[in-house]
Amino acid sequence: MAQIQFSRGINEDVVPDVKLTRSRDNTNGTATFYFQNPKALSQSSTDEITGMYLIDEEGELVIKDVKAKFINGKPEALEVFYGMKSVEEWDRFMRFMSRYAEEHGLGFTKS
Amino acid sequence: MAQIQFSRGINEDVVPDVKLTRSRDNTNGTATFYFQNPKALSQSSTDEITGMYLIDEEGELVIKDVKAKFINGKPEALEVFYGMKSVEEWDRFMRFMSRYAEEHGLGFTKS
Repeated sequence: MAQIQFSRGINEDVVPDVKLTRSRDNTNGTATFYFQNPKALSQSSTDEITGMYLIDEEGELVIKDVKAKFINGKPEALEVFYGMKSVEEWDRFMRFMSRYAEEHGLGFTKS
Repeated sequence: MAQIQFSRGINEDVVPDVKLTRSRDNTNGTATFYFQNPKALSQSSTDEITGMYLIDEEGELVIKDVKAKFINGKPEALEVFYGMKSVEEWDRFMRFMSRYAEEHGLGFTKS
């Protein structure tokens, strides 16, 4: 099971959009996650957001650059930026994303 | 280089949307490709559409179920359905899609 968490042990139910970019020589890549009204921001949630954890059968990726987007003073979305600096990091990330996409009904679109 | 072709040897420039579904037990999966105004349908193209060819460093996947969508009598889009009947077929397809997505700037969205 591939899961995303913002607090350890609490699966995020909202499925993000993910934009991908990659440099022409493949050494650098970026992924930008966007979660609209995620469970982690709901009023009932008392768990602190400590990062974004991508969890699958190979282990865990931890991404610390999590930003909340506020509209009229209320947090409405989470945006997470992940910069990758090697082919290995990119390949590992894409293995997670393939699993997560399969399990959560994501498709591919031009970003 | 991961490429899609509709006639052998002619790369399609238009990048599709791809919707994915998978059965809960993972034995069956589907991918539906949608190409809006693809090069293969342009008036300048004289190459016959003989199938959809997904080509990467591992080889080639051939999908025969290609449908043209007509609007006011003019072909405007190509829709391709790919049904997969095993985990191996799905994994092979996702390896192609990961490569294609990287190279053509696809992202993931809820389908």
